Amino acid sequence: MRTQVVIVGAGPAGLLLSHLLAMSGIDSVVLETRSREYVERRIRAGVLEQPTVELLREVGLGERMDREGLPHEGISLRFDGADHRIDFAALTGRSITVYGQQEVVKDLIAARTAAGGDLRFEVTDVALHDLDSDAPRVTFRDADGVRQELRCDAVAGCDGFRGVSRGSIPAGVLTTYERSYPFAWLGILAETPPSHDELIYCYHEHGFALHSMRSPQVTRLYLQVPPDERIEDWSDARIWDELHVRLAADGFALTEGPLLEKSITPMRSFVVEPMRHGRLFLAGDAAHIVPPTGAKGMNLAIADVRHLSRALTAWLREGRTEPIDGYGQACLRRIWRAQHFSWWMTSMLHRFPDADAFQHQIQLSQLRYTATSPAAATSLAENYVGLPFD
Amino acid sequence: MRTQVVIVGAGPAGLLLSHLLAMSGIDSVVLETRSREYVERRIRAGVLEQPTVELLREVGLGERMDREGLPHEGISLRFDGADHRIDFAALTGRSITVYGQQEVVKDLIAARTAAGGDLRFEVTDVALHDLDSDAPRVTFRDADGVRQELRCDAVAGCDGFRGVSRGSIPAGVLTTYERSYPFAWLGILAETPPSHDELIYCYHEHGFALHSMRSPQVTRLYLQVPPDERIEDWSDARIWDELHVRLAADGFALTEGPLLEKSITPMRSFVVEPMRHGRLFLAGDAAHIVPPTGAKGMNLAIADVRHLSRALTAWLREGRTEPIDGYGQACLRRIWRAQHFSWWMTSMLHRFPDADAFQHQIQLSQLRYTATSPAAATSLAENYVGLPFD
Repeated sequence: MRTQVVIVGAGPAGLLLSHLLAMSGIDSVVLETRSREYVERRIRAGVLEQPTVELLREVGLGERMDREGLPHEGISLRFDGADHRIDFAALTGRSITVYGQQEVVKDLIAARTAAGGDLRFEVTDVALHDLDSDAPRVTFRDADGVRQELRCDAVAGCDGFRGVSRGSIPAGVLTTYERSYPFAWLGILAETPPSHDELIYCYHEHGFALHSMRSPQVTRLYLQVPPDERIEDWSDARIWDELHVRLAADGFALTEGPLLEKSITPMRSFVVEPMRHGRLFLAGDAAHIVPPTGAKGMNLAIADVRHLSRALTAWLREGRTEPIDGYGQACLRRIWRAQHFSWWMTSMLHRFPDADAFQHQIQLSQLRYTATSPAAATSLAENYVGLPFD
Repeated sequence: MRTQVVIVGAGPAGLLLSHLLAMSGIDSVVLETRSREYVERRIRAGVLEQPTVELLREVGLGERMDREGLPHEGISLRFDGADHRIDFAALTGRSITVYGQQEVVKDLIAARTAAGGDLRFEVTDVALHDLDSDAPRVTFRDADGVRQELRCDAVAGCDGFRGVSRGSIPAGVLTTYERSYPFAWLGILAETPPSHDELIYCYHEHGFALHSMRSPQVTRLYLQVPPDERIEDWSDARIWDELHVRLAADGFALTEGPLLEKSITPMRSFVVEPMRHGRLFLAGDAAHIVPPTGAKGMNLAIADVRHLSRALTAWLREGRTEPIDGYGQACLRRIWRAQHFSWWMTSMLHRFPDADAFQHQIQLSQLRYTATSPAAATSLAENYVGLPFD
């Protein structure tokens, strides 16, 4: 069996790539180890940058997003027990849209399915072969356990940080840049209306807290915890108590509700380059991870596949190879911008266990400055809403 | 013998305080361990913020500064072998003035001397007494070795980081915030015209370098070196060689010249609070140190004594104590802003010995962003030219 591009992974990156390639008349097959139901319910990112929103609209994926997504024109920085709003609309003329990753995935699957796209869920034993040749192959077992082989022109590794794609590149080829943080995020999803219209990024002496939402009925809340924290040690009551302490502010009342989910996420910065090895192209989390503080992960994956779809189109339809040769370089400036921004937000808003009193004062001064200087606030805002694509 | 305010230290802080108090009709005596010739030649800071320039003009100290100072409307960030100008004038409408600290000191000594001010140089054995009482005293030996005692209402500790004033405060009273950096600056003063009209802050894989100047005939250059570096290990030839390597850029030629001075300066961030103990008020380097990267040290000292002169005037002429009670608080927001800015510039521009490849990429991304985003450039610029007082 043969296709032009085998896409490993049916997350936002892989599915959008399949959609964009189809718009250019390029065939692809998407392979996903999880079930369709699983990926459509998987709670991950929830903030779309303005360039992401515009791209999704342009390619016919904006209808439900525009109906159900929550446009936000700012966020609050909360410290010293008070809110300091960063007004994205006033500072940049742009905004963000709160719309869960799983909703983007649902829209993409619906669009690909309606267009007759080839999506294979619940595959196993995915393996990439002959990436160095001009006839790469991908083998796997389908949902019935039957061995399959796909010959192709290119493989797109969109299978996330723990996927097989990056691991298929021989040792010594990739340069890795990495930073792990001495804390994790304990996240909950609660069935209760958000306690505030916008996201609240809170710096507190106990550590960072974040008030967010997934819909008008579902609140998303996070607490900074030690990196080795066990979720069993956090009863629902303990979580709410700590959220009340950290998020305390005049005129703010945190609404509680039944927990739909609770989990602990490690915090890591990670980049590999090059993003191409022979006929394999990495995109999204397969090539880079950001800590979630800047809400950049999914947006960066989408920026990658925007470049990749154009590069593959130029090559497979017009025979031009410069765009695929330049694919990684085209992505890396935005990737490092997002890495810096995510590291900067993380460093400003968390309590580091080894931080001294000097560090605490520096963070407070930075927060106060960011909240009061239009230039500094604009700098945060323009990164948060998303710098324009190239 | 009695005066209203004994000022310990004839640097820019102490001398300007004496000048400002005299304008309000308040007597002071300035005590300085060094000779007049020494302090008038001591090479230290060289960049005046716009608020500093305006203050000096307002109080009648602007004439020679306006004639001989070099107004600069920007600086360059040099990295990746190219210059990226931060245009202060366009971004903020403000600018800086390159005018050596020793020139400010000369102007202040001339003004105080002309006005009959009491400045005592080459004093020894300065000791502060009864600071907790309402009758503090300062004892010292004058230039002839004769013991003297000054009774006063208040003592201003303007005697720098290693002066006696801060050390006169009992143990346990002060809270200290401190950061030392794993590098130092090797600085030279060279008798040669500057190789460029403006300051160049250079990030290079060998470490930071700075091209600066003191006059149209004298260039000031710095190299990041390890903190324990010995000046004897740096011949003039080695210094020039390394400057040529780090400052290399298309179209730039570094002009060499005879060295007038060469020294190594450690890099430290330091703050104590409170800035008042009884009748003793600390100002400038006696209370806080910044790494020189942001050019904030002298400017911060001048901002302190602006507050202190007003507070002492309110108290000694009108009997109001709120301003002296609030003196430290009035200064500390600007101090922490300068601390954050100095730490930020230092962190962005130096190679840290323990930095990994991720850190290097983050610094490069931050430099590129600062050079290309008007918001980020404005943020650097507004801090560099000096945020408005209060």
